[in-house]
Amino acid sequence: MAVIFGDNQYGKAEIRLVHVTRDRDRHRIKDLSVSTALRGDFAAAHLVGDNSHIVATDTQKNTVYAFAKEHGVGEIEDFALRLGRHFVGSFAWVTGAKISIEEYPWERIVVDGAEHPHAFCRAGGGTRTTAVTVEGGQEARAWVVSGVTDLVVLKSTGSEFTGFPRDRYTTLAETTDRILATAVTARWRYASTDVDWAVAHADVRRILLGAFAAKHSLALQQTLYHMGEQVLQAHPEVAEIRMSMPNKHHFLVDLTPFGLGNDGEVYHAADRPYGLIEGQVTRDDAPEAGQAWRAIPGF
Amino acid sequence: MAVIFGDNQYGKAEIRLVHVTRDRDRHRIKDLSVSTALRGDFAAAHLVGDNSHIVATDTQKNTVYAFAKEHGVGEIEDFALRLGRHFVGSFAWVTGAKISIEEYPWERIVVDGAEHPHAFCRAGGGTRTTAVTVEGGQEARAWVVSGVTDLVVLKSTGSEFTGFPRDRYTTLAETTDRILATAVTARWRYASTDVDWAVAHADVRRILLGAFAAKHSLALQQTLYHMGEQVLQAHPEVAEIRMSMPNKHHFLVDLTPFGLGNDGEVYHAADRPYGLIEGQVTRDDAPEAGQAWRAIPGF
Amino acid sequence: MAVIFGDNQYGKAEIRLVHVTRDRDRHRIKDLSVSTALRGDFAAAHLVGDNSHIVATDTQKNTVYAFAKEHGVGEIEDFALRLGRHFVGSFAWVTGAKISIEEYPWERIVVDGAEHPHAFCRAGGGTRTTAVTVEGGQEARAWVVSGVTDLVVLKSTGSEFTGFPRDRYTTLAETTDRILATAVTARWRYASTDVDWAVAHADVRRILLGAFAAKHSLALQQTLYHMGEQVLQAHPEVAEIRMSMPNKHHFLVDLTPFGLGNDGEVYHAADRPYGLIEGQVTRDDAPEAGQAWRAIPGF
Amino acid sequence: MAVIFGDNQYGKAEIRLVHVTRDRDRHRIKDLSVSTALRGDFAAAHLVGDNSHIVATDTQKNTVYAFAKEHGVGEIEDFALRLGRHFVGSFAWVTGAKISIEEYPWERIVVDGAEHPHAFCRAGGGTRTTAVTVEGGQEARAWVVSGVTDLVVLKSTGSEFTGFPRDRYTTLAETTDRILATAVTARWRYASTDVDWAVAHADVRRILLGAFAAKHSLALQQTLYHMGEQVLQAHPEVAEIRMSMPNKHHFLVDLTPFGLGNDGEVYHAADRPYGLIEGQVTRDDAPEAGQAWRAIPGF
Repeated sequence: MAVIFGDNQYGKAEIRLVHVTRDRDRHRIKDLSVSTALRGDFAAAHLVGDNSHIVATDTQKNTVYAFAKEHGVGEIEDFALRLGRHFVGSFAWVTGAKISIEEYPWERIVVDGAEHPHAFCRAGGGTRTTAVTVEGGQEARAWVVSGVTDLVVLKSTGSEFTGFPRDRYTTLAETTDRILATAVTARWRYASTDVDWAVAHADVRRILLGAFAAKHSLALQQTLYHMGEQVLQAHPEVAEIRMSMPNKHHFLVDLTPFGLGNDGEVYHAADRPYGLIEGQVTRDDAPEAGQAWRAIPGF
Repeated sequence: MAVIFGDNQYGKAEIRLVHVTRDRDRHRIKDLSVSTALRGDFAAAHLVGDNSHIVATDTQKNTVYAFAKEHGVGEIEDFALRLGRHFVGSFAWVTGAKISIEEYPWERIVVDGAEHPHAFCRAGGGTRTTAVTVEGGQEARAWVVSGVTDLVVLKSTGSEFTGFPRDRYTTLAETTDRILATAVTARWRYASTDVDWAVAHADVRRILLGAFAAKHSLALQQTLYHMGEQVLQAHPEVAEIRMSMPNKHHFLVDLTPFGLGNDGEVYHAADRPYGLIEGQVTRDDAPEAGQAWRAIPGF
Repeated sequence: MAVIFGDNQYGKAEIRLVHVTRDRDRHRIKDLSVSTALRGDFAAAHLVGDNSHIVATDTQKNTVYAFAKEHGVGEIEDFALRLGRHFVGSFAWVTGAKISIEEYPWERIVVDGAEHPHAFCRAGGGTRTTAVTVEGGQEARAWVVSGVTDLVVLKSTGSEFTGFPRDRYTTLAETTDRILATAVTARWRYASTDVDWAVAHADVRRILLGAFAAKHSLALQQTLYHMGEQVLQAHPEVAEIRMSMPNKHHFLVDLTPFGLGNDGEVYHAADRPYGLIEGQVTRDDAPEAGQAWRAIPGF
Repeated sequence: MAVIFGDNQYGKAEIRLVHVTRDRDRHRIKDLSVSTALRGDFAAAHLVGDNSHIVATDTQKNTVYAFAKEHGVGEIEDFALRLGRHFVGSFAWVTGAKISIEEYPWERIVVDGAEHPHAFCRAGGGTRTTAVTVEGGQEARAWVVSGVTDLVVLKSTGSEFTGFPRDRYTTLAETTDRILATAVTARWRYASTDVDWAVAHADVRRILLGAFAAKHSLALQQTLYHMGEQVLQAHPEVAEIRMSMPNKHHFLVDLTPFGLGNDGEVYHAADRPYGLIEGQVTRDDAPEAGQAWRAIPGF
């Protein structure tokens, strides 16, 4: 037997870029965390410390900042595609690049009833993400997986959990009315790169929220599938969607020792453990995923 | 010399309570983290392990949940006052109680243009807080310090920093146009307990945001003072306000090595170190603070 | 086209189990976070909310605690195998289980020169992990991937970075003496389940630390490969190893404005961004990985 | 009434400094997070944005790095005193400085049975801290409060909790054998600045651990007081000690539904809520604390 060098990648993680677009005194901001990862022929660095193929991660960081100036940022999918194509197109030995971006939401501060032109407050409602994979040099192919994380949602009713199997270790009571709460991480793969990213993202997010809210839930699994199905039915440009949804348990507090009832009013919100429900909804005619999901935390 | 037992307190921290008010199918939720701390004669427990005065922290937790059912939650200031008065009124040896509450913001999910009656999404814009101190048994006095934390704001222009002294260790260049970003922690002490808590809190928060946005800033210190001054001028029921504001540095990236300018467009958002500006704005006729600020992280 | 239900799994995450073994007054403790994930035929729950196949995550949690009593814990690999085989063996529709465990290190407190029999202090040196996959019902196959995370190491010299390519965006200077610091996450797949887990784990960890320390580093990639190679050469029972190593940058502070040199003495430890180097070292005759790496954060 | 400018301070927080002392090829490292805070006449900055008194936080950061080179670091108490005296001695309007330092523990990696001269692994056992206050210009006074945080300890037996009062809201059962676990934050004030900091700190830490381990605990309050008392009895140079100890609850899992007993073997380690016990042990002849505790999170 022989020891051999296997799969590998490297890059710069969590490059914090804030980009300001100034339209007279009305500004727009993009607040991003950009991570780059390159694949290719890096064997010499690993085996003998020859760095002639190692595009420094510092150079990758510089490239992100310089591109923000040279080309602007725009939608994060476009920015990631531009960066990925640059890396695979500029270095013969770099055969793949994954550019992952998180975009943090801000809203304008309102002063005297009017939006302030350049003052902002961090908003809630989750973080927009994209993970773009580019492979193959001059005629590179590209895959775009966009998504949302930390989209924390809760229904105070309209959720049941009954009919599950009971074995020796089962103590959970059935319930026809519980709190359902989760922090949605959804990632969807676009079938092409010819998409109106901003419009598509906003609408997928809207559908996810609406489906979570409107669906009477018999299981978090059912809610998850319903959310994905609604997205795919409305968006032919989405090939598949993967969701990871922790079941953030809210336990009805037993108040009977105090002579009190508790008809769905007082809950203890638990941290750990939590259920973790993960699933994929796809199309029967989805184009191949290729390297799209590589290095994305998965299931 | 002799070793002596000094100051002390104990309680239950971070009791996670979610309370649902059901008005037919339209629900309201309160999502809280409640911490209790009692003061009084606990010497025997410390000196000889005699727990006859130690109201168990588990009992304190139960009381929080039971009170949520018996009396509802309402505004967090009222809930904290009720709990604090209970503890000092129920146990002769308990002479003081501090009830600290964080309230997490949620907004209703919109489905087909209408607010869903019982589905919610976690919002941004900071966490509402209160820290209520009750002292003195049957004729207890009470102080209320409410506030907001994690109110993350940013101005992309309208901020300068010039005219600071230069010594041997000074390298910072003066600037007349920078990003100003911070995460506001503000805590204000009410002059009485006869306040419309919800209205007052919402308006103080509105003023803080508006003052941050509107004030052309020559120093973060100036912005801080202006924010506090605006609050006190508008709210006679506020005796004083204390603010802690990290200067979340955004550094203009030097793009000259790449032959590029950078006219306030591309910034690196740094994590550490950060400036930390802390200050108090008060009134010349503010009533005494008493124990109001005890055990609140301060400066 | 039709929307179809794809890949999925679910389970209970971060079950916090502390197990005490009492040997008269000398105790041993195991402090674990256990996560379970099941695969199988769960389509009905997703499609129509029929939970008859959904082994409740609460039941999974109960099983973990009950097994700790019934069978003890022992080495985490054995505990995970026992749990995984239980789930695939007990429910006809469950075809796969992944049991992931983190074990937190404790050391005995020393009192008057002797180890206390039942008092402990949390130790450093990283967290021991395992991720066990069991597939296939009665004649289940199993894969064991053990590892270490948060193993934070630093060399104050013996690290260079030179000879990297320079393009338009390169500004980094070459260096022949820098601090090399990282937080090692290593995961290694055992070729079989017939291993002395405790002995193997301790020795792999020892080798990783020793290789990091002893190897003069021309690139973090070289250090990573060397660490893996040393493990594989010493441990035939290890089929492959994957490592993820952030380059935790320590920047030499420029003290020239203050008329001071800085010959490798004063460094700024940066948080973000950081380099991220990931690689695999394997054998040419390694048995197939099967499902071993599924759902493990990867590259 | 008039709005007035009150208390205030500002500085640079969490300056991450790693200092290397090279004794031929054997290196020593100090890994610190340093925070500075200045008090004095900063009214003009707050009121009108006049920064002529505002020693830039960037300058404060530079000073920390430059001092590490010019004077070395040594013990963190000495380093903090040196910095604090510099700030109050250099600027007429700066009347007070608080320098807070955290020092992270590292141990040498052992290779082939010998300590490696310049390779290190992050250790456990808590973080060493100091908070030094200097007041008053040329004839400045100074207070030193040193401590330890994140010292996580656990006893698997030797802890009881009985005899506590029972009211309507009490459900907790008494126990004569439970797990006692906490994360000690201790801060002790030295009576002078003429102390062998390293020796004193190591011994106080040793006593805290030993007292926690050896004391049969009837209440966490009793353990806390005992720990402090032991420190004061052994260290006349310590004027007082304050401790904050969360009661990290470990709940015995009820296994009776599974037909199993649980004789102190299987515990669920809970995150929140937790008890929080805080207390001070002092001397009857302790010198005045002055500003020593200002701005230290307290109780």
